[in-house]
Amino acid sequence: GTTPSEALNNDHLVYGYECQKGVCKKVELSEENFSKAISLPVCRLFCGEDIGTLWPKPTGAVELERLMKQVDVSNIEIKLLASRKKDNLWNNVENRWMDLIHAKIPSRKSLNNGGYELNIGVTLKEQHDGLPRLTLVTDESYNLSIDSAADGQVSVNITAENFFGARHGLETLAQLIVYDDIRREVQIVTKASIYDAPVYKWRGLLLDTARNFFPVKSIKRTLDGMAMVKLNTFHWHITDSHSFPFEVPKQAELYKLGAYSPRKVYSQEDVADVVEYGRVRGIRVMPEFDAPAHVGEGWQHKNMTACFNAQPWKNFCVEPPCGQLDPTVEGLYNVLEDIYSDMFKLFNPDVFHMGGDEVSVNCWNSSQSIRSWMNAQGWGLEESDFMQLWGHFQEKALERVDRVANGTRTPITLWTSRLTEAPFIDDFLDKDRYIIQIWTTGEDPKVKEILKRGYRIIVSNYDALYFDCGGAGWVTNGNNWCSPYIGWQKVYDNSLAKIAGDYEHHVLGSEAAIWSEQIDEFTLDNRFWPRASALAERLWTNPATNWRQAEARILMHRERLVENGIGAESLQPEWCLQNEDECPIDAYDAQN
Amino acid sequence: GTTPSEALNNDHLVYGYECQKGVCKKVELSEENFSKAISLPVCRLFCGEDIGTLWPKPTGAVELERLMKQVDVSNIEIKLLASRKKDNLWNNVENRWMDLIHAKIPSRKSLNNGGYELNIGVTLKEQHDGLPRLTLVTDESYNLSIDSAADGQVSVNITAENFFGARHGLETLAQLIVYDDIRREVQIVTKASIYDAPVYKWRGLLLDTARNFFPVKSIKRTLDGMAMVKLNTFHWHITDSHSFPFEVPKQAELYKLGAYSPRKVYSQEDVADVVEYGRVRGIRVMPEFDAPAHVGEGWQHKNMTACFNAQPWKNFCVEPPCGQLDPTVEGLYNVLEDIYSDMFKLFNPDVFHMGGDEVSVNCWNSSQSIRSWMNAQGWGLEESDFMQLWGHFQEKALERVDRVANGTRTPITLWTSRLTEAPFIDDFLDKDRYIIQIWTTGEDPKVKEILKRGYRIIVSNYDALYFDCGGAGWVTNGNNWCSPYIGWQKVYDNSLAKIAGDYEHHVLGSEAAIWSEQIDEFTLDNRFWPRASALAERLWTNPATNWRQAEARILMHRERLVENGIGAESLQPEWCLQNEDECPIDAYDAQN
Repeated sequence: GTTPSEALNNDHLVYGYECQKGVCKKVELSEENFSKAISLPVCRLFCGEDIGTLWPKPTGAVELERLMKQVDVSNIEIKLLASRKKDNLWNNVENRWMDLIHAKIPSRKSLNNGGYELNIGVTLKEQHDGLPRLTLVTDESYNLSIDSAADGQVSVNITAENFFGARHGLETLAQLIVYDDIRREVQIVTKASIYDAPVYKWRGLLLDTARNFFPVKSIKRTLDGMAMVKLNTFHWHITDSHSFPFEVPKQAELYKLGAYSPRKVYSQEDVADVVEYGRVRGIRVMPEFDAPAHVGEGWQHKNMTACFNAQPWKNFCVEPPCGQLDPTVEGLYNVLEDIYSDMFKLFNPDVFHMGGDEVSVNCWNSSQSIRSWMNAQGWGLEESDFMQLWGHFQEKALERVDRVANGTRTPITLWTSRLTEAPFIDDFLDKDRYIIQIWTTGEDPKVKEILKRGYRIIVSNYDALYFDCGGAGWVTNGNNWCSPYIGWQKVYDNSLAKIAGDYEHHVLGSEAAIWSEQIDEFTLDNRFWPRASALAERLWTNPATNWRQAEARILMHRERLVENGIGAESLQPEWCLQNEDECPIDAYDAQN
Repeated sequence: GTTPSEALNNDHLVYGYECQKGVCKKVELSEENFSKAISLPVCRLFCGEDIGTLWPKPTGAVELERLMKQVDVSNIEIKLLASRKKDNLWNNVENRWMDLIHAKIPSRKSLNNGGYELNIGVTLKEQHDGLPRLTLVTDESYNLSIDSAADGQVSVNITAENFFGARHGLETLAQLIVYDDIRREVQIVTKASIYDAPVYKWRGLLLDTARNFFPVKSIKRTLDGMAMVKLNTFHWHITDSHSFPFEVPKQAELYKLGAYSPRKVYSQEDVADVVEYGRVRGIRVMPEFDAPAHVGEGWQHKNMTACFNAQPWKNFCVEPPCGQLDPTVEGLYNVLEDIYSDMFKLFNPDVFHMGGDEVSVNCWNSSQSIRSWMNAQGWGLEESDFMQLWGHFQEKALERVDRVANGTRTPITLWTSRLTEAPFIDDFLDKDRYIIQIWTTGEDPKVKEILKRGYRIIVSNYDALYFDCGGAGWVTNGNNWCSPYIGWQKVYDNSLAKIAGDYEHHVLGSEAAIWSEQIDEFTLDNRFWPRASALAERLWTNPATNWRQAEARILMHRERLVENGIGAESLQPEWCLQNEDECPIDAYDAQN
């Protein structure tokens, strides 16, 4: 071990922490206080909050004994109990978990020898061979207990219905293991018992990889962050008018012409890799093929679009470049089927997203052939006629989805739009089939109109969950349309119960979105993190408290993200991390 | 060389560019157009703008022949003419310049063989041995010419008064060399002639390394970006109340207690390294020791401060933690002298920054000993009395600066404050000695009050140049104080002439600032870049045109930053880069 004077002199360690009245106070280390001084992560684990530094907060009972013991990191074993064999998936889960533990150690050299053996037993109640698949009925709960045997060895038991719950349990366990920079050792809580299950089923992030391209490596970093906070859905808005970076071998022109460059295509191997990477982390990777609007590049020679790159764009779409599928072209649906077919093959989605946002009547109306077709149906050219056209598209496209989904009647998600308003929603969208993703404001009365009809919803109200808001303007100067920047506090406090009122039981959950017009791999991490963590706690825990009570904890959690290679934004000066509750403007008044 | 079908088939290259009516149009490559198809960087170099993709725009005459030839990158030589010997500095300049060229090549494997020899001759008119030092009278101009000999070999001549101009010339040269992804070769403009010199002398970025710490590596990335756009001043706001990360051996307690951790200290070697890294890139690294406010951590046992970490902080300072030096303690000035002494030794500054912002009367007034001292002087406790105290501090501190600066009467910069307003400015600040750094808005009438008195100014008006604006709140929820985010367009259009009116000749230049409460190494690059480039063109060129005319060029320039390892923010979808002038909302109206 390290003696006080070694630590104080050789390593120049200056500060430790003491828990005083539920707050960790920074204190200068001395020969006198060295033996009882604790490091910040240890102090925060026990001081104040009864759930320590866990993020997201567990929803069930949590008991943590206020005692740590050293773990020998070279002597950790994870066993899958109840005769389930370790497969490739489990090996990946274990390797990743060990990486989480090793990421806590600043350098191998600085680690002191010693510590107890750690045995982790994982029991899945559900008997299931083959690849586990997250669905809307998956039970993600888990039980975690930590105990110490007489010989000092630490044993952990995680029990869960299935793979997903068990994985969450391991995640929580990782948060109960810390590095103590005073003693230079990895420590674990000696005794704990936690029951935990999420409040909302759908806890997601959306990434748009079409406005700007994101290398697979950066997508994987996003999945890493999600796993750490038990987010379970990566909504991949893979294509848009700007580019078509998805390899569809049967429709090679789409990605060959549609990608920004030959290197900026997600090959089928890339997609399979991302899907599996997500599974290891308990995440469904759900594809969106947005249509009939939000298409363009890749389709230029197909004669299946209207207003392709039309100018002035403001007359035909909400941002450049314009483009919408032409629902009147019969051949279109075969192309769609090829796209859907590859998406179902690669993603095996339990919910499929068909897009459906921002259809422009002007765009379709600018096409002579569309007008003629509508005329031949005996339709007029009013908005309601174009909604009829859209409904026609949606029904025919859905047929093709069903064809490739082998009659599974996969639930379909659509964005809120004119089509999700009366009377069109009743005419075209079956409430038992369609889930509506809300992107209007949380206070928009249209939300309750949809809920009242019995639709399930996913909430992505832009005023709290569009993480691209707040940049510069990009089609002109000033700021972008949904400015200002949304702070983590607003994300944390975005109550779905308040948005849904009496219909909360119809809320599946929520997604935060990065629309990538002004974001690429270099700003991805700081746009998502730690705000996506704030969302994660809102969805997993749905706490009755607000951001203010979570502040000290999210500062610690942000460091954990950074430790694991995620370039999360800094929320406050490091001084505020080291001096708990000294920064908030109301802290003094609240204490005194 | 590559044949068209090899390029089209094996490499899957799909698009090239054609210059049409001054705009580069993306075209599908075919056997027919392959031989005349050009890559985007080549097209943009000649199409439209007569200065090509140069950033910042040269201020003198530019002639570029619209012809490129392949360069053999293994056959480039830089010669220092006029008998100046190559020293370590020049070797570093050359190595860095070769890195700029190599960064253009996506992969060594993809480079085709061949190309002409490139000989670069650099002539400095000024005879000067030893380390060059940038000052307020340094002539940064340069002449650059490119010519081809009969044998095809390319020769470049750069002539400048001194090291700094010559370095700028090399920077411009690097921008005239591009990688052609169609022919897979590095190419140079065959014939060019450029005269160039900056409009403003002081072209800077400020980084605050006290609210959050920045590793030397991230500071060096900042200097890399600055060199690329000829910014010449790195203003290092090295300490603040939050932390004291600067090694002052004679006052070790300051950084031992004041740093966030022992690893978060800039050692004397680190500082010397940064200063030299800046010199290689034509950048003065200027230290700021902010006083008498903005001190705190590190000073806790010295009994030389007032309101140290006082709570509730809002009563004593503008953000937590509070702290001000106590001007009445005689021993204080010895400590300051030790700090100044190390700063002068390491930085050898031609201008020194003494801070001077946000002094709180309440803070000083909360100290019994300060009140007693003032009383003993026969002073009252009105604001004017505390200004007298501040003036006293400034005079005594300046004496200590002068003592370590060997009587050079180094110009001193101070932030705008109550002290820079009448009558105090006249009482305490000599206009021939002090430069005032403006941080109020560009329209504040106080700016002209200062100019009218004859002070030189550096402009950092927060409404255009505080790059930390626009994040979340951090002492409470909502957004930070100077929200919203400042777009690059506003930075570009921030006219110093407009701010200074008749007194423009007193404007030394400008600095953009990153105050780092919510920024650290992970968001540093995207907060500075490419907005700092917008500032650079405003200061170097002071163009009569506005952001709109610079838009297509800055998109190209942003890619150049990324190519060189700087995580610059994406300004627009990549589609807008590839489809010049199709995105701006006014583009169609302007064209038609």
